[in-house]
Amino acid sequence: MGSNFGSDNVTPACDAIIQAVNAANAGTVASYGGDDLTARLQSRASEVFEREVAIYPVATGTAANSLALSQIAAPFGAIYCYEAAHIVTDECGAPEFFTGGAKLIGLPAPDGKISPSQLSHALSLADEMGVHHVKPAAISVTQATEWGTVYTNEELAAVGALAKERGLRLHMDGARFANALVHLQCSPAAATWRSGVDVLSLGATKNGALCAEAVVFFEPELAADFERRRKRAGHLWSKMRFLSAQLLAYLSDDVWLDNARHANTMAEALAQGLRTTPGARVLHPVHANEIFVELPEKTVVGLESAAFKFYRWPLHRSDHGIAIRLVTSYMTQRQDVEAFIAAARHWGGV
Amino acid sequence: MGSNFGSDNVTPACDAIIQAVNAANAGTVASYGGDDLTARLQSRASEVFEREVAIYPVATGTAANSLALSQIAAPFGAIYCYEAAHIVTDECGAPEFFTGGAKLIGLPAPDGKISPSQLSHALSLADEMGVHHVKPAAISVTQATEWGTVYTNEELAAVGALAKERGLRLHMDGARFANALVHLQCSPAAATWRSGVDVLSLGATKNGALCAEAVVFFEPELAADFERRRKRAGHLWSKMRFLSAQLLAYLSDDVWLDNARHANTMAEALAQGLRTTPGARVLHPVHANEIFVELPEKTVVGLESAAFKFYRWPLHRSDHGIAIRLVTSYMTQRQDVEAFIAAARHWGGV
Amino acid sequence: MGSNFGSDNVTPACDAIIQAVNAANAGTVASYGGDDLTARLQSRASEVFEREVAIYPVATGTAANSLALSQIAAPFGAIYCYEAAHIVTDECGAPEFFTGGAKLIGLPAPDGKISPSQLSHALSLADEMGVHHVKPAAISVTQATEWGTVYTNEELAAVGALAKERGLRLHMDGARFANALVHLQCSPAAATWRSGVDVLSLGATKNGALCAEAVVFFEPELAADFERRRKRAGHLWSKMRFLSAQLLAYLSDDVWLDNARHANTMAEALAQGLRTTPGARVLHPVHANEIFVELPEKTVVGLESAAFKFYRWPLHRSDHGIAIRLVTSYMTQRQDVEAFIAAARHWGGV
Amino acid sequence: MGSNFGSDNVTPACDAIIQAVNAANAGTVASYGGDDLTARLQSRASEVFEREVAIYPVATGTAANSLALSQIAAPFGAIYCYEAAHIVTDECGAPEFFTGGAKLIGLPAPDGKISPSQLSHALSLADEMGVHHVKPAAISVTQATEWGTVYTNEELAAVGALAKERGLRLHMDGARFANALVHLQCSPAAATWRSGVDVLSLGATKNGALCAEAVVFFEPELAADFERRRKRAGHLWSKMRFLSAQLLAYLSDDVWLDNARHANTMAEALAQGLRTTPGARVLHPVHANEIFVELPEKTVVGLESAAFKFYRWPLHRSDHGIAIRLVTSYMTQRQDVEAFIAAARHWGGV
Repeated sequence: MGSNFGSDNVTPACDAIIQAVNAANAGTVASYGGDDLTARLQSRASEVFEREVAIYPVATGTAANSLALSQIAAPFGAIYCYEAAHIVTDECGAPEFFTGGAKLIGLPAPDGKISPSQLSHALSLADEMGVHHVKPAAISVTQATEWGTVYTNEELAAVGALAKERGLRLHMDGARFANALVHLQCSPAAATWRSGVDVLSLGATKNGALCAEAVVFFEPELAADFERRRKRAGHLWSKMRFLSAQLLAYLSDDVWLDNARHANTMAEALAQGLRTTPGARVLHPVHANEIFVELPEKTVVGLESAAFKFYRWPLHRSDHGIAIRLVTSYMTQRQDVEAFIAAARHWGGV
Repeated sequence: MGSNFGSDNVTPACDAIIQAVNAANAGTVASYGGDDLTARLQSRASEVFEREVAIYPVATGTAANSLALSQIAAPFGAIYCYEAAHIVTDECGAPEFFTGGAKLIGLPAPDGKISPSQLSHALSLADEMGVHHVKPAAISVTQATEWGTVYTNEELAAVGALAKERGLRLHMDGARFANALVHLQCSPAAATWRSGVDVLSLGATKNGALCAEAVVFFEPELAADFERRRKRAGHLWSKMRFLSAQLLAYLSDDVWLDNARHANTMAEALAQGLRTTPGARVLHPVHANEIFVELPEKTVVGLESAAFKFYRWPLHRSDHGIAIRLVTSYMTQRQDVEAFIAAARHWGGV
Repeated sequence: MGSNFGSDNVTPACDAIIQAVNAANAGTVASYGGDDLTARLQSRASEVFEREVAIYPVATGTAANSLALSQIAAPFGAIYCYEAAHIVTDECGAPEFFTGGAKLIGLPAPDGKISPSQLSHALSLADEMGVHHVKPAAISVTQATEWGTVYTNEELAAVGALAKERGLRLHMDGARFANALVHLQCSPAAATWRSGVDVLSLGATKNGALCAEAVVFFEPELAADFERRRKRAGHLWSKMRFLSAQLLAYLSDDVWLDNARHANTMAEALAQGLRTTPGARVLHPVHANEIFVELPEKTVVGLESAAFKFYRWPLHRSDHGIAIRLVTSYMTQRQDVEAFIAAARHWGGV
Repeated sequence: MGSNFGSDNVTPACDAIIQAVNAANAGTVASYGGDDLTARLQSRASEVFEREVAIYPVATGTAANSLALSQIAAPFGAIYCYEAAHIVTDECGAPEFFTGGAKLIGLPAPDGKISPSQLSHALSLADEMGVHHVKPAAISVTQATEWGTVYTNEELAAVGALAKERGLRLHMDGARFANALVHLQCSPAAATWRSGVDVLSLGATKNGALCAEAVVFFEPELAADFERRRKRAGHLWSKMRFLSAQLLAYLSDDVWLDNARHANTMAEALAQGLRTTPGARVLHPVHANEIFVELPEKTVVGLESAAFKFYRWPLHRSDHGIAIRLVTSYMTQRQDVEAFIAAARHWGGV
């Protein structure tokens, strides 16, 4: 990724995945998912998650999230989530579109992790208001979160238990699920359905694919009619083999974990360097591959002038300076990290 | 495509396009369409259509059609089209979903081509019914049509003139636009905006791409806010370069025309052979790459037993037998065509 | 109604109903349906239909139909009905709006009555097309039909049996249900759930109310969350007593039947007179309170000049002349009928 | 209203309005708003607001708000409002339903009044996020607010100026507009379009009608196609005269102002009494007809036991006790107010 810390989606596809796409490009096969690669993906995903799952490939994370939510929340439903979750702030209303108008009820959370007690309080309001209030339907958590933190399995299971108790479904936005998994050092099963997750948006694009995400239902019955939802949203590919091939390669030979582990390691190295950089203030624990750091404005300007790529975080400005986001990826090189830290020190120096 | 006449979407990508995808797989670039390939696609499309156009790549034809229609028809709008148009019968309600409930008003047409007089009659009903009736908003034509026929430019211009006169927008579902263009032997401009088309769904997937279609607006102002529509439908790719690369290659070096010309030639050869096959009845003029033919049931069964792939057309059965659809593609080989004709004669023989 | 045969909705409210509204206008009561009149309506409706029903008052027929359909058809669902049903042609896309985009699949029917064999054929197409086709969800019949005819209970039960067999729900648009009931001379139960109807839009406005319709579910479980659907459509009245009072009066003391019987009787008298009027051609059996008749254009013009009110039926013109619709109501006087017939003869005379 | 302070919608209709309904109940008239009363309402509303307006009667406030918002916000639009506005918390997702998924962006405001600086900040975020963020479309203010306070005309005009500057439309939820107007002691024009309001939901139900609200557009061009929106939502009454009659009476002979003035006066008397009641804490300025007051729990329980009706405000509990809401109406009697205060003192006494 050179010195591009703008996002993990500025990367090309990793070798294993681009090779899989090329290998899939041979001969005629049944369209719309009737091909062999798609069948193999179903098996592989079930193996990975240690139970029979129903997996549906789509091309974008917004599609995965919104389709998943539309399956578990009625148009008059409420979906509880972090107030600055990706589904709230970055998808241009896609969840509302796909669900037919369900309401995302955002809860504050300094580190992006919502808690059972917050949820209980919000659910009490719904109870008191009855028919005037949208119907509690689902909870959505992001793992790793929008702030690069990761729910522990205990934290997640507590949310899952509340969901079960209240008859809500639990969705996980796993755009960076592999990064979380590597951090948690647990099995995919433990990180999802064993902790109460009903449906996962499994990301691959940011972690080495060209354009591949998947909706994974842990109880296949929960996926009834989901194929039609995908079709009517224009997300059923005729040449499905090209999506399935990416995901199959991703979930094979530890590609997803190796890519994520590298990104996390680079993020930790970057965070380490920044923590000891004068004037820098790392804002959250760095559990995955995102770092939020406050830097003096002149440092930020300097880094930009030196062609480092990253985002100034919208509207975040404090006495310490400006918050920026740095994202590492499977491609980030150690020398890129070192160069960034050196530059931050240079531009931040007295 | 071997002897697979099931659809043109059973094919892999053609060489030029898969090579373009591989070439695009290098280095970090800005995401969400901020890359150079996407910029070049805009230029190239404007060149090809001989005017400044706004082109938006998406992965599927259903997405292209539905997004285009949502831009030109209000939720309380009427979209006039052929009663068995792809948007009516094959997209699981996607146009209704994307438009927020607009109504497709289907008109009968033996060869899939709707006429100004039909449209005028239907519009008169809307006029008489006023607010009780959905508001006439758009006309959608398929080019080449669902029956493999092609509107002449005169036929199309007559529909276009009516649209202008009545203040409606004209959409073209060009899933097989290149096949139509090759048949018409005219410029892309003549086949679209010069004949009154406002917005085109330009297909590439069936004609050599992995997964690439585009919505093309011929007046860029008509595309206001379209980016947000695409985003909220989950059709804005983060790694847009991979979509743009396909379309750029498609529209370069006559790839699209060469592929389509080959498919059309094979279709014509197949039709020729079938027209002289005892018991066979070719149902429509063969202008593009689809052939609909009635065959005795035993012939159809025989062909199926010989592993030829094609579709029995739903619910079409006459005294002559069963209707099947045969689709040729850029990959179809002459020997496949000859083998099919020989087999049809063999199984149809007395 | 004087000589206004334009529609049965040009009438004021009948005495029993306006009195009930006035009687309800006293004291403070719980809002949103927590009042006593609403409770009594629930009981009365259950009595009338001879089983525990769930009844939800709303102000318009379009609301009743669309809310009912939204409860039984998913956004990706298909609703089968007559091609010129009120829900297709007269509600400005309301069913699509409320369902979130479900598709109304219209079937031809000269007298407005659809048949099991038509439905079976249409369902076969859905079966063959699978995920590309909207999912068969519901059947909607209008009783009395848009042409003033009435399904016999046998005809209805045959549709109901098919619905059950195929797992579809059966909706009845009963905007003129009382008129049908009087014609059928059977119990409300026999005319609905005993013939397979799952949900009824029960009309009162056209038959003597100010603004009262109701959605009646014959299995209360089918009504789960329906209150929220009504609320979010803006159809839950705060002062619900005023809706409930109308419906309670309507269903009491045979008001609904008496009003409808009178209207039907007047329609039959009008039809009788027209059948023997030279140049007139009554188009359909007259089962309820609507008459469609073709008259020479000069007769129609003459009647209009004499201030008779009726509709020229849109786009209906034949060798016999112009089709008009005449609707009778609880207010129609015999002298109005006689005056109309006399005038038709006068203006039609040589 | 006796001692029912639960809401102003527990009341019957006031004399002027029920008489108008009865008067309208005579003879046949054109349906769907083609009647004379509806025409007169248009004139009267234009007179009242001192400019040509377009007024559309509907039966509920939720319908008025949601229809109005759907006219000014695209499905991918953002509507800025107070975070606990009625449209956010009390309409079961109706705005999302009618707009096709627009997002309500709630801003905190202790007294229910949002400010230009808050709005500017929120709009900056939208600017920075571009296509990923819903498009700023509208601002909605409630007047009187959900807390019974009233924007001054200066405060309102400042919001209106920002709206104009940013190309947003300004909607006013005027469920209790008359109460605000009486408080402001200004003209209806000054309180709306002269302060930048584009569209008003004008409430009458809570202030003396049976079921009448209206959407009022101050530039009639802004109402293009609004009739179809109303129709497809099931909110176009066939017997429109009964809605128009209510609103016409409401806006005539100062009925609306007299009713509201009485309610406000009673509220002020109640507030006065409570301000000097030991243990009671009135929470907000009382500008209109709602009072929020904290009382010790035992006082609340005592009042409930004495059959006073009011709402415990959901989830509001502080060191001072429980918050309850008291609403006065055109029917509230001074002795009801005095009885309540006496009881509050009795049950709150040591």
